Amino acid sequence: MSVGLKDIQAAAKVIEGHVVRTPFMHSRTLSEITGAQVWLKFENHQFTASFKERGALNKLTSLTAAERGAGVIACSAGNHAQGVAYHAHRLGIPATIVMPRATPFVKVEQTQRHGAEVILEGDGFDQAKAWAIESGAKRGLTLVHPYDDEKIVAGQGTCGLEIIEQCPEVRTILVPTGGGGLTAGIATAAKALRPDVHVVGVQAEGAAAFLQSLEEGRPVPLPSMSTMADGIAVGCPGEVPFEAIRKNVDEIITVNEESLSRALLMLLERAKLVVEPAGAAAVAAMLDHPHRFRTPAVAVLSGGNVDPLLLMKVIRHGLAAAGRYLNFTARIPDLPGGLARLLGELAEVEANVLDVVHERTSATLHLDEVEVVLQVETRGPDHAERVLGRLRECGYTVSE
Amino acid sequence: MSVGLKDIQAAAKVIEGHVVRTPFMHSRTLSEITGAQVWLKFENHQFTASFKERGALNKLTSLTAAERGAGVIACSAGNHAQGVAYHAHRLGIPATIVMPRATPFVKVEQTQRHGAEVILEGDGFDQAKAWAIESGAKRGLTLVHPYDDEKIVAGQGTCGLEIIEQCPEVRTILVPTGGGGLTAGIATAAKALRPDVHVVGVQAEGAAAFLQSLEEGRPVPLPSMSTMADGIAVGCPGEVPFEAIRKNVDEIITVNEESLSRALLMLLERAKLVVEPAGAAAVAAMLDHPHRFRTPAVAVLSGGNVDPLLLMKVIRHGLAAAGRYLNFTARIPDLPGGLARLLGELAEVEANVLDVVHERTSATLHLDEVEVVLQVETRGPDHAERVLGRLRECGYTVSE
Repeated sequence: MSVGLKDIQAAAKVIEGHVVRTPFMHSRTLSEITGAQVWLKFENHQFTASFKERGALNKLTSLTAAERGAGVIACSAGNHAQGVAYHAHRLGIPATIVMPRATPFVKVEQTQRHGAEVILEGDGFDQAKAWAIESGAKRGLTLVHPYDDEKIVAGQGTCGLEIIEQCPEVRTILVPTGGGGLTAGIATAAKALRPDVHVVGVQAEGAAAFLQSLEEGRPVPLPSMSTMADGIAVGCPGEVPFEAIRKNVDEIITVNEESLSRALLMLLERAKLVVEPAGAAAVAAMLDHPHRFRTPAVAVLSGGNVDPLLLMKVIRHGLAAAGRYLNFTARIPDLPGGLARLLGELAEVEANVLDVVHERTSATLHLDEVEVVLQVETRGPDHAERVLGRLRECGYTVSE
Repeated sequence: MSVGLKDIQAAAKVIEGHVVRTPFMHSRTLSEITGAQVWLKFENHQFTASFKERGALNKLTSLTAAERGAGVIACSAGNHAQGVAYHAHRLGIPATIVMPRATPFVKVEQTQRHGAEVILEGDGFDQAKAWAIESGAKRGLTLVHPYDDEKIVAGQGTCGLEIIEQCPEVRTILVPTGGGGLTAGIATAAKALRPDVHVVGVQAEGAAAFLQSLEEGRPVPLPSMSTMADGIAVGCPGEVPFEAIRKNVDEIITVNEESLSRALLMLLERAKLVVEPAGAAAVAAMLDHPHRFRTPAVAVLSGGNVDPLLLMKVIRHGLAAAGRYLNFTARIPDLPGGLARLLGELAEVEANVLDVVHERTSATLHLDEVEVVLQVETRGPDHAERVLGRLRECGYTVSE
């Protein structure tokens, strides 16, 4: 039960022409920020915007005619769902995708768009998965596991082959790590071809199942998880990837939510790329440790499917963290011209007002006061400080 | 005073290795949406995220040693500023960039980061420009015009050479058009090499200076402009580009703000690319007229410098337009449990609440009522309608 270079090379032949050989670009921006030579591998430019198509197609192609005829089932509300749906449809294999009942409609729609039947079942992911396994067995459908399958790991490994071809001088490869399929595949390919390449798995701090598992020498489930990087929020490593990672990955490091958010925003603002939080994990690790890795270093952007609402939240948060966006409340006298005067002061210090909400009641307000909640655009932390300072000098009670 | 293929080929030699030969990709997403073969040219992946570097570098390289020693001046708060600043710095030419006084700090900082001296002068762009011309003349600086210059047009034309090389079978090229530099350059190159290629300039409806100008046979200034696409908001065509466009561009079409916004969001959500509103103009035209152009068609993504706050606005607007985001106010009784009951109803119809603001005073409210402003995530227009319908059925006064 292990995957070797030959399996990955065979997978590469299988997927050729059907899965995008994704672009690979030197990132002058990231290189400038880290002072190192950084390259990016754009798995977010796959048709369904993630690497998952590689493994899914390799698995689907390996099925017998009878298995293809009967169809496949998978449990995923994310990238795996889209990868399976898209290639099953292309190959004429009926696909059933099971998602938890509370899955946002957008995700359901994205998967239906690729031609799959979507079934909403279970209160959470584990229930949906159990249902998928049971229902699949009953209906004679082949389960396409998102990572714990040799065909899947071999398929994801094709991304590693491409990296070595596109950048033969690579010295470090950083890969976002959830269940471990992509990391296992890339590490197996890279180490077989170039044993001196350093492969680093990057997990979200709130979902770092590999750390303890590697210590204990077997996959150990996490008691709980918390991260916005849903693409790598996997509570227990898969058996197949675990073995490959134990053998071929040099280290697992973690990044926190703040780093993920900063990396996502950097890619968006500077590199003009949309990645999902999981897809930004490798870049987050580079930004956290700009001098730690031997270079040239390659950061894999594993996927780009980010909910627009989350994207807005990350942008807002990033602007606030950079002091370019300030939220505060101020008390003003409940008199004609009270708000106008406050806005005049803000104009004086060149803060651009984005939003004003008048609040008339609050337990601690005096009767002749109103509270206004303001959002203003500022030039940076110093400017934000000056804006608040000026208002306080003018006698306003201001709180962030 | 005209630019020919030879000038553009010479410019290509000058900029080779110093300006990115930008990627060119088939867009399966856009091809699917339009039912045509659509390719994208990624000028947003230039280091300063726009095509402006091409012309700027060609111009700077053409200066005499004395001119280089004295330095250059340019007036721009946008992509041209960054393009000139970056390459002037690289060549050791002192650069002064003049921006209107109200320019957001982020734009000032982006240009300073590339090593230019930024001077804030003038209440608007015209005043800043006048100041730049006068000050440049006084100080002996060479003015680097953003578009009305043969060297600039020839530089931008290199993008056209690349398109013909990267897609020899191209039949239509769509180019965002402001002052006309990029469009003139691309059209001149494309028509010289392939007279049968159709070149389409795309302007923002609120800043379409070329329409009347072409009709009257000379550059005619617009009385006013209004568009979020600041990259192509130019009130009067340049003389040099005007001549080239009159000769080589087949048609000028316009896109409105709604189309620009939709195209920007489509590129962000589906193609995982960040473009500025001007950079989305060619794609907006494709989406407006999916069957109008001979294919393969190439849409030039001219730039990616979009203000994050504008990006948030476009995302929010796009989600609202798609019925995936609903803003409304509801009146509830000012009693314990009043809000809880309303939120219970929303949960019943599976609307995901994003934000709630309590408003206690409004001229038309009864004394025993409060108003809440809600933002909820919905699944589409039908679902949004059902959400509002349900609340009305339950007796709430609801308004969008």
